[in-house]
Amino acid sequence: MTEIRLLGICGSLRKASHNMTLLKTAQQLLPEGVSLHIADLTEVPFFNADVTTKPAAVVALLEAIQQADGLVFACPEYNYSIAPALKNALDWASREPDNRLLAGKAAAIMGAGGGMGTSRAQYHLRQVGVFLDLHFVNKPEVFVNAFSGVFAADGALQDEKIRANIQAQLIALQALVTQCKK
Amino acid sequence: MTEIRLLGICGSLRKASHNMTLLKTAQQLLPEGVSLHIADLTEVPFFNADVTTKPAAVVALLEAIQQADGLVFACPEYNYSIAPALKNALDWASREPDNRLLAGKAAAIMGAGGGMGTSRAQYHLRQVGVFLDLHFVNKPEVFVNAFSGVFAADGALQDEKIRANIQAQLIALQALVTQCKK
Amino acid sequence: MTEIRLLGICGSLRKASHNMTLLKTAQQLLPEGVSLHIADLTEVPFFNADVTTKPAAVVALLEAIQQADGLVFACPEYNYSIAPALKNALDWASREPDNRLLAGKAAAIMGAGGGMGTSRAQYHLRQVGVFLDLHFVNKPEVFVNAFSGVFAADGALQDEKIRANIQAQLIALQALVTQCKK
Amino acid sequence: MTEIRLLGICGSLRKASHNMTLLKTAQQLLPEGVSLHIADLTEVPFFNADVTTKPAAVVALLEAIQQADGLVFACPEYNYSIAPALKNALDWASREPDNRLLAGKAAAIMGAGGGMGTSRAQYHLRQVGVFLDLHFVNKPEVFVNAFSGVFAADGALQDEKIRANIQAQLIALQALVTQCKK
Repeated sequence: MTEIRLLGICGSLRKASHNMTLLKTAQQLLPEGVSLHIADLTEVPFFNADVTTKPAAVVALLEAIQQADGLVFACPEYNYSIAPALKNALDWASREPDNRLLAGKAAAIMGAGGGMGTSRAQYHLRQVGVFLDLHFVNKPEVFVNAFSGVFAADGALQDEKIRANIQAQLIALQALVTQCKK
Repeated sequence: MTEIRLLGICGSLRKASHNMTLLKTAQQLLPEGVSLHIADLTEVPFFNADVTTKPAAVVALLEAIQQADGLVFACPEYNYSIAPALKNALDWASREPDNRLLAGKAAAIMGAGGGMGTSRAQYHLRQVGVFLDLHFVNKPEVFVNAFSGVFAADGALQDEKIRANIQAQLIALQALVTQCKK
Repeated sequence: MTEIRLLGICGSLRKASHNMTLLKTAQQLLPEGVSLHIADLTEVPFFNADVTTKPAAVVALLEAIQQADGLVFACPEYNYSIAPALKNALDWASREPDNRLLAGKAAAIMGAGGGMGTSRAQYHLRQVGVFLDLHFVNKPEVFVNAFSGVFAADGALQDEKIRANIQAQLIALQALVTQCKK
Repeated sequence: MTEIRLLGICGSLRKASHNMTLLKTAQQLLPEGVSLHIADLTEVPFFNADVTTKPAAVVALLEAIQQADGLVFACPEYNYSIAPALKNALDWASREPDNRLLAGKAAAIMGAGGGMGTSRAQYHLRQVGVFLDLHFVNKPEVFVNAFSGVFAADGALQDEKIRANIQAQLIALQALVTQCKK
């Protein structure tokens, strides 16, 4: 059975990001045969069409996306839409010839934020995925209220219901990756 | 009669940006009593809650927004949503206490891009405005197809119909700023 | 001081609708000088451009909208978007010459539904309002979780926090109507 | 090779609907092994949870959806969102136990309308599909400007570019149906 390689992309750049915790929690909950690497966006600059030589951090990001069979977005919500660092990572990736890094790939979205769990941002991200030709897991959606005490003082996510939700989404993504590769 | 000061914010960072041209065109078409300053986003970094001292470019941006009575967004469309540099400018501005820089301000959106003139990105921006408590001009919307030959070789926008459209939007914004300040 | 007349439009047609309860609750919480009439959509058929004689229920709806200074939408969420009966009422109203029934009117949205309180539907409704030239109250938004026990067995809404939220929205709408009429 | 049965659902109820023409044009352009039946929404009433006995037109609609392997939506745009008759058909279908009529089905969207070809409505429909667990064709999208002369006086759609676009979408849908059934 072929290993499925997932790439996690987190829209928050702060060190103690709850959204990054979602990705790290996902790493503990992977189905057998699935791996999850997390991209490093800290040095990725804003996309600018005038920049003709890709910075090293962009090169590394694009290679990581190329090697991935599927994507897991940790999607914060800033002012009712997508965090710029996450959108920017996709904008860089979208500039490769024939959209070869993204076209037809399966993806899942999870997010931690206010009471609606970043849902508003997630629907914007799904619209972005239409142009990028991504295929998203529909169910389950993962909406985490970061202010409800589910994150421990040390940042860990121990809530069993949310962990089960993340695990179910990873299983759905595994199936969708398999389906999209056929 | 009080001068109305508008601030233009452009989501594209490239030098020959068509969206920046929209703002410069708007500067030629201002109603009497209205001025339009254009913000400089080139050095504004990604918002990161870990950064506690605002970089100089952010300080300058926030001061420019504070001094403005209304905002004009030049809104490119990247992959069916908002350009990160534009969203990021708003994310920085939104962090001031009580949303004092943005709450209740009037705004207008114009955009140049593919055949739909950045409309998909503009509707996402309008949703952002709900949280930021911006009041947008509804009509006219300004959607410019950048690939239809309306921009001359030197970048200038001479198309009379689009210029009239921009002018009508500025007049509507002037009225909305006046209304919102009452 | 001029009386402000509001019209409530509810997207749910069922008799014990929680969204209709929101409008009836709003009638108990009106600021002084504000009245709220509720439209009857039960006999309004689907809009069809082939129908050249307006049915009586449509005529009554359009008259009620014409007489209103502002609109209050009780917006259920069906399958992540707007209830057809609500959208259909607006589609009929939009067909009058020069959009004379709706252009420039102030409006507010409240909704009762699942855990996100119909937010997904409400943002779709706000996009509809761009074309209809409605001006929506930005804050407060009213999102009611109908499954959280806030509605009593007899359907009444006694939750003090939600009642205060509705009242604050009505005060904001009163101010916006006044502003839009200037 | 198994026949793939598609069901077309058109949001416009008028007899000479351009969107219905899109579906009839699609019937002329089907890939081998694919059939396309068109649903009749003319007698489908508004969904109302108080109605416990399904009207005959609803029963017929639900049976047609059940028998379909994939769906083709002809999606008009009314006031920047979905036509109520189309949304209403999906609302009825969504009420079956376990979402058994729709869960996991592949679908495509085409639309004829103003200059943006109903794109605003189509993105709302895609959000509806997240909850309904539909899998949409990403590319090609079909956006037809009904006012550009592509429809002949007798209503026929002869424009070769649009016909090729519809055909390409049907081929993509055929592939997606096959993929989703695995």
